[in-house]
Amino acid sequence: MINVNPHFSQIKPTYLFAQIRQKTEAYLQQNPEADIIYMGIGDVTLPISNAVITAFEKAGDEMGQKESFHGYGPEQGYGFLREAIVRGEYEPLDVEIEASEIFVSDGSKCDVGNIQELFSESCRIALGNPVYPVYLDSNLMAGRTDIVYIPFTAENNFAPLPLKEHVDVIYLCSPNNPTGTVLTKSQLQAWVDYAKKEGSLILFDSAYSAFISDPEVPKSIYEIPGAREVAIEFKSFSKTAGFTGLRCAFTVVPHELKGLDGEGNVVSLNAMWNRRQCTKFNGVSYPVQRAAAAVYSPVGWREVKDQVRYYRENARMIRDGLQEMGLTVYGGEHAPYVWVKLPDGVKSFEFFDLLLDRCAIVGTPGVGFGSCGEGYFRLSAFGDTERIKMGLERMKENLRLV
Amino acid sequence: MINVNPHFSQIKPTYLFAQIRQKTEAYLQQNPEADIIYMGIGDVTLPISNAVITAFEKAGDEMGQKESFHGYGPEQGYGFLREAIVRGEYEPLDVEIEASEIFVSDGSKCDVGNIQELFSESCRIALGNPVYPVYLDSNLMAGRTDIVYIPFTAENNFAPLPLKEHVDVIYLCSPNNPTGTVLTKSQLQAWVDYAKKEGSLILFDSAYSAFISDPEVPKSIYEIPGAREVAIEFKSFSKTAGFTGLRCAFTVVPHELKGLDGEGNVVSLNAMWNRRQCTKFNGVSYPVQRAAAAVYSPVGWREVKDQVRYYRENARMIRDGLQEMGLTVYGGEHAPYVWVKLPDGVKSFEFFDLLLDRCAIVGTPGVGFGSCGEGYFRLSAFGDTERIKMGLERMKENLRLV
Repeated sequence: MINVNPHFSQIKPTYLFAQIRQKTEAYLQQNPEADIIYMGIGDVTLPISNAVITAFEKAGDEMGQKESFHGYGPEQGYGFLREAIVRGEYEPLDVEIEASEIFVSDGSKCDVGNIQELFSESCRIALGNPVYPVYLDSNLMAGRTDIVYIPFTAENNFAPLPLKEHVDVIYLCSPNNPTGTVLTKSQLQAWVDYAKKEGSLILFDSAYSAFISDPEVPKSIYEIPGAREVAIEFKSFSKTAGFTGLRCAFTVVPHELKGLDGEGNVVSLNAMWNRRQCTKFNGVSYPVQRAAAAVYSPVGWREVKDQVRYYRENARMIRDGLQEMGLTVYGGEHAPYVWVKLPDGVKSFEFFDLLLDRCAIVGTPGVGFGSCGEGYFRLSAFGDTERIKMGLERMKENLRLV
Repeated sequence: MINVNPHFSQIKPTYLFAQIRQKTEAYLQQNPEADIIYMGIGDVTLPISNAVITAFEKAGDEMGQKESFHGYGPEQGYGFLREAIVRGEYEPLDVEIEASEIFVSDGSKCDVGNIQELFSESCRIALGNPVYPVYLDSNLMAGRTDIVYIPFTAENNFAPLPLKEHVDVIYLCSPNNPTGTVLTKSQLQAWVDYAKKEGSLILFDSAYSAFISDPEVPKSIYEIPGAREVAIEFKSFSKTAGFTGLRCAFTVVPHELKGLDGEGNVVSLNAMWNRRQCTKFNGVSYPVQRAAAAVYSPVGWREVKDQVRYYRENARMIRDGLQEMGLTVYGGEHAPYVWVKLPDGVKSFEFFDLLLDRCAIVGTPGVGFGSCGEGYFRLSAFGDTERIKMGLERMKENLRLV
């Protein structure tokens, strides 16, 4: 028998959403007639927009004809998509990004999970608490255990000040998953300043940036002066354009980013990530890249904006409904997630069971994202408006919490 | 500045095929009128078959309709595809594989590169020489340096006997990339016996198995008794059905496979790989999975078989042509690659330059796959028949090697 990676034993054997699925299945076995309303996992429900699916199918046609067939593409993504991202995503923000700094992939989960391969095993990592579990698990699997947690709680208004101690790598997510809250320009500037002073690297996950409607809230970390020297950014078409089932995302690694190798040589992180991707990845499906590029066409852009507006309106409805019930809520303004503060003493898995039992609603227990998520609950606005309305009615009728 | 993964410095900074691309571009700058024939990189050229592209586009339509839209799918792949693989790939070989042992991914390169995350850093690794560079580079990047090379050369008929010494993990590829040669049932049985005796794990890459036409050559390592206890298998739709641009593959991890964790507990490799994929991967594009399943439909299967036959006929033509020129060739019977023995003293990068200069043909220098590839050259049969014919004519006219 071979010796396996010993670090796998350090992580919890069940992935949060798998656990929720199991609980839901158990409930359905007991209540086969139940009409469950899903407000748990952050998955979109609106179909892919017309302009985008048309581009997708046109590219499918190309794949069926000898003259227009595409085999292996560039591991980094096709030039047409990298250029479209520069023009569609960054130029409107007055942010200068080169196509060679953009790496197209099949998902932000993959990129966020794989990026830690670039770091030394001894790097000290800072994570939010609560946090998207992939940041933590991917580091634990690689044997990185020097981890500092930054509380994101109501007490610090979900915008903690930079640390007093030194860390090498900081994961920041804004709009935040799970809290649905955002960091403003000045709050993010403080983190960029910290990273410059400490020689740290910020990993900025902005998969939900399409939901931002306030110009004071940056959609890209590169809106912050100095960020090109300290930050990698992750963005996705999943929530922006409903690509959770099509699979496309991208990661930005500015040429300014450097690190020290084992012999003290200065090396480029862009070159390292390029090498990583060329060695272990073979590019995104060609029709999917054509579909992603169509998101930035005039019609595509209008259509995906309408979808985001639909989900944002759902989030507002959830916020209002819960507030009418006397609950305190956070997030949901520039994000598809509403972060519910549970009444004192109510634990988040207790509330999960209660909500499922009394209302047949599936949500996500806050503690699943870390200890500071205890006493909170995440509701997703990605569902159908009418179903969410029905869910809120059920809560008003069957829950007496405050 | 952060400390980066120090092992990245251990690998050559340029990936083989990138190097070839650079040389080709330099040639084209000098000879802008040149009509280059590409017989280097192993990329398909025939379009996706009708039945497959029809399934792909039907699934694209589904994605554009609310009722049939698909968001996140299972990380392991949809049941419909995992079942289709069991029935289409393994039942005809009388091999029992369960759907829960199949993990669908976006490419064998990814799986082959990522699988080493499951192993302890101290594992002793055996690789063929020459070898597909990803096996080596992915281990070096993770800091694994205890590597044993097994020569695959004309001297041992490209079928080396199992090692006398102990290794933990053995990478085997049949039909082989780059040599185009295969291991027979009895040759593979010897390796399975070795692995059982030594407690080793075999990583069996059979991405090219669709090219096998001799029943004595196994298409799956699970045709060999005992292999379920010692082997992981990688297969791909890339070469079988022209999916290099659509991206789909799968990896088989039998439930019997076990390893020892840091505390001496016996753990399941299937459970570990499942955890790895659930943490760092989010499933393959839904329409791509529908397309892959259509490969196993009666019409799809007939169409992809015709494509393989076309490439196999190209390979036969290359073999015959080179033999007429007095060269010794290997492979190309059950594989899309012909492995050319260069005349004594001719180095493989010398021949690359010669072939490009005199014939405007791009091939792959054998030494790019390892030191035992020096003095060999790889030609790919994935091109257009007429272009390959033209290439052979050019060689006959302009090369005088023997």
